[in-house]
Amino acid sequence: MVSIDEINSFCKRKGLVFPSSEMYGGVAGIFDYGPVGVELKNNIKKEWWNSIVHSHDNVVGMDGSILTNSKVWEASGHVDNFVDLLVECKKCGAKLRADHLIEEILKKPTEGLSSKQLDEIISKNKIRCTECKKGELSSVSEFNLMFKTNIGPSGKEFAFLRPETAQLIFTQFKNIVEVSRMKLPFGIAQIGKAFRNEISPRNFLFRMREFEQMELEFFCHPKKKDECDLFDGVKDVSVNTLTAAEQENGAHKLSKKTISELYKSKLIKSKWHAYWIASRVKWYFDLGIRQENLRIREHVSKELSHYSASTWDIEYNYEFGWKELEGIADRTDFDLQQHAKVSKKDMAIHDEATGEKVVPHVVSEPSVGVDRAFLTFIIDAYNEEEVNGEKRIFLKLNPKLAPVKAAVFPLVNKEGMDKKAEEIYKELKKHFPTFYDDSGSIGRRYRRMDEIGTPFCITIDGQTMQDSTVTLRSRDTLEQQRVKVSELVTKINKTLCA
Amino acid sequence: MVSIDEINSFCKRKGLVFPSSEMYGGVAGIFDYGPVGVELKNNIKKEWWNSIVHSHDNVVGMDGSILTNSKVWEASGHVDNFVDLLVECKKCGAKLRADHLIEEILKKPTEGLSSKQLDEIISKNKIRCTECKKGELSSVSEFNLMFKTNIGPSGKEFAFLRPETAQLIFTQFKNIVEVSRMKLPFGIAQIGKAFRNEISPRNFLFRMREFEQMELEFFCHPKKKDECDLFDGVKDVSVNTLTAAEQENGAHKLSKKTISELYKSKLIKSKWHAYWIASRVKWYFDLGIRQENLRIREHVSKELSHYSASTWDIEYNYEFGWKELEGIADRTDFDLQQHAKVSKKDMAIHDEATGEKVVPHVVSEPSVGVDRAFLTFIIDAYNEEEVNGEKRIFLKLNPKLAPVKAAVFPLVNKEGMDKKAEEIYKELKKHFPTFYDDSGSIGRRYRRMDEIGTPFCITIDGQTMQDSTVTLRSRDTLEQQRVKVSELVTKINKTLCA
Repeated sequence: MVSIDEINSFCKRKGLVFPSSEMYGGVAGIFDYGPVGVELKNNIKKEWWNSIVHSHDNVVGMDGSILTNSKVWEASGHVDNFVDLLVECKKCGAKLRADHLIEEILKKPTEGLSSKQLDEIISKNKIRCTECKKGELSSVSEFNLMFKTNIGPSGKEFAFLRPETAQLIFTQFKNIVEVSRMKLPFGIAQIGKAFRNEISPRNFLFRMREFEQMELEFFCHPKKKDECDLFDGVKDVSVNTLTAAEQENGAHKLSKKTISELYKSKLIKSKWHAYWIASRVKWYFDLGIRQENLRIREHVSKELSHYSASTWDIEYNYEFGWKELEGIADRTDFDLQQHAKVSKKDMAIHDEATGEKVVPHVVSEPSVGVDRAFLTFIIDAYNEEEVNGEKRIFLKLNPKLAPVKAAVFPLVNKEGMDKKAEEIYKELKKHFPTFYDDSGSIGRRYRRMDEIGTPFCITIDGQTMQDSTVTLRSRDTLEQQRVKVSELVTKINKTLCA
Repeated sequence: MVSIDEINSFCKRKGLVFPSSEMYGGVAGIFDYGPVGVELKNNIKKEWWNSIVHSHDNVVGMDGSILTNSKVWEASGHVDNFVDLLVECKKCGAKLRADHLIEEILKKPTEGLSSKQLDEIISKNKIRCTECKKGELSSVSEFNLMFKTNIGPSGKEFAFLRPETAQLIFTQFKNIVEVSRMKLPFGIAQIGKAFRNEISPRNFLFRMREFEQMELEFFCHPKKKDECDLFDGVKDVSVNTLTAAEQENGAHKLSKKTISELYKSKLIKSKWHAYWIASRVKWYFDLGIRQENLRIREHVSKELSHYSASTWDIEYNYEFGWKELEGIADRTDFDLQQHAKVSKKDMAIHDEATGEKVVPHVVSEPSVGVDRAFLTFIIDAYNEEEVNGEKRIFLKLNPKLAPVKAAVFPLVNKEGMDKKAEEIYKELKKHFPTFYDDSGSIGRRYRRMDEIGTPFCITIDGQTMQDSTVTLRSRDTLEQQRVKVSELVTKINKTLCA
């Protein structure tokens, strides 16, 4: 498997991702997307929005602000609980995450351990500072991960940069219900940036301080979590599964199960939760993620968030292990009740079906980082092979995600081939992002397109001038076929809409 | 003309825009986009990106971070110069923008005046606090508009929230040139959020603390600002014009001029600058902005930014006067030279055409706020009329921008009409955002769609069940035609691709 460092330098070389403010030494955990990267990122967001908002009758979108009133984060619990546990080196002053330190040195999981427990492990194992390799460590203290900033000229008011997009949905919940005339069950979706002052951002785009989230809050009547009319459409989705019980029994072997099995055996506790898990897994599979690299894993009780009745993660098999790609929690009515309590506003809505006033449950909250999805699509699509003794790197991206859909090359820049190529290029460009390249050998031009995952390369040669056909070369199979110029758009569009 | 307050409450009522964190009293100058608003906003961004990036061979995109190394803003001049001039009330402590205060009370422009000049005007005219209506005012002081936040656990490092997207392009300039193999002239475009700690955010979406920008930096060889091969395509664009000379002569009457005239008479100083001004004006016109509501205005010398050789604003005739909708500056090589100076890195690139190493000029920087464009499209599209003695509000949005493209109504929920309507709805929804509505009278359903600018409403009635035709009703003309169900998608798509 390609390493995260190789992916990082590959991304930089190909204009996918650069360290932000790199010329000034950058800022750890913060990145800029380059020309190729921004297109891939936009395509991922578009596919998500289409699949969540535009393909569901009962889901609407919103786009909330980043700077938010601090009361929102008091209600959500972030002011009190959104903390990392730190230790400070008494010698060099380095501040380190206690849990990461223990995981790194003792190779032991630390999920759900308290400050006191971490303290004990550190002192018992005589763990020292990993920076200066010498210093003793302070006891564990809390560090809030929210970025804070002053707002207005007084110097007294402040706001937080949102650490998650979800709360923006909860705070507008009543407004949205009112104007959209939504009836339970329904969802509210959002894509947007979030910020976490991570102590040790790491693994490139995996853990960043500034990142983008795609989140859906799907609300339903608390007693109707099993009334899901969409379930049948996804019940046969089959995926590697690791349940909480299996983890607690120490059985870490993966088994493939269908969503139908998982629901029927009550491993997934509600039908709507099962629907969204399946639907999200299917999204990754449909967009080309290899089935063997994905699994769903149930949270064991000690790692379950305080707001969650049940959480399943979609995990990917990264170089650094199986890690969360997407979390899908049943958040219950925790957040709406918290906001009702703190704001003293009624968060209940009228349910037409039962005639009751209810505070709905978020039966499912699929939440994924755009950047983490971006990284995962690249890792999964990254291929190296030998062709005629030369290394070929190609990104086997689903054509829908590919930053450039087609490239047009004149075989030589003469005999009218360049003119003809430009003409074809201009026509294709009207329909989908197309790239023109007339420099270097055809082989090199192919390589450049392979590396950014362009599914189709079109070469205009001598024969084109005679019979108006071109060679259409496939990125994945390297197969070349002769295709009529007049059929190019239809042929390529067919793949893009598949 | 509809007032900004009416637009504000209309936007809230229809789910376009809500005050952020409203249930906690909000934050001045910060808003959330609701279900209808987010779709309109996304459509505006998509049209901009298509027109700037995907329709130009020599423009690429990027997406930079919001949190940025403070050195970036030292180089750009924002740390020293990005300030508002404040006065403080000696009685109530209110902090007010000196320029706004003078404009409000004396109805006099204040562009380009220094602190000292503002002080003099305030004391000469005995201007008092407008909050408590009594207090004397302090002398003018500077207030930096950048939001600052601590980064990392040390409490010593900090970063700024970017006050503009442009600098992110300049700091990645060399990386992008290298990986994209761009040749002069070329552009780098970006859409993303920016943050300004405005003292007095006002006029709804017009001046916000958190907003989104769409910016292009178009680079060219300093001696080749007139070599523009795209000029002929836009030379006949004709627009209301107000030159610097006209303003200095006190002649404020607008005259319509073509871009060709403006360039030939050297009122617009370079061909590339003229191209981008025309191109941007055309974008607004093509998307339906009424020609009489738009003008281009040249900056007079005293309002010209320190980095600019020439700036033209595209202005809209708002309720509160002609104001900047978009600024299009020739930024020269100011920024790249500044970054070269501060970072001690070479910002020159090799120009293939001349063989020279040059620091290119930003011959044109079209820069517009997404939110301001959003506001403007709504104001311009907002129509009220009387139909059969009832007020009809409709948003005459270009179908490309419309949040919902078509709505499907069964005339009654029986006789198979509901089933048929659902079937048609499901088919249309595969192609474009479609809404289903079966509640209330047909008249009410029409009104609801008119208000959010849905161009087409489709009613399934008794005749549909006989001959598979429906009524297709146009938002703007109210005309109803009978159309075959099988032709609906093609017919509507034709308008969307026009």
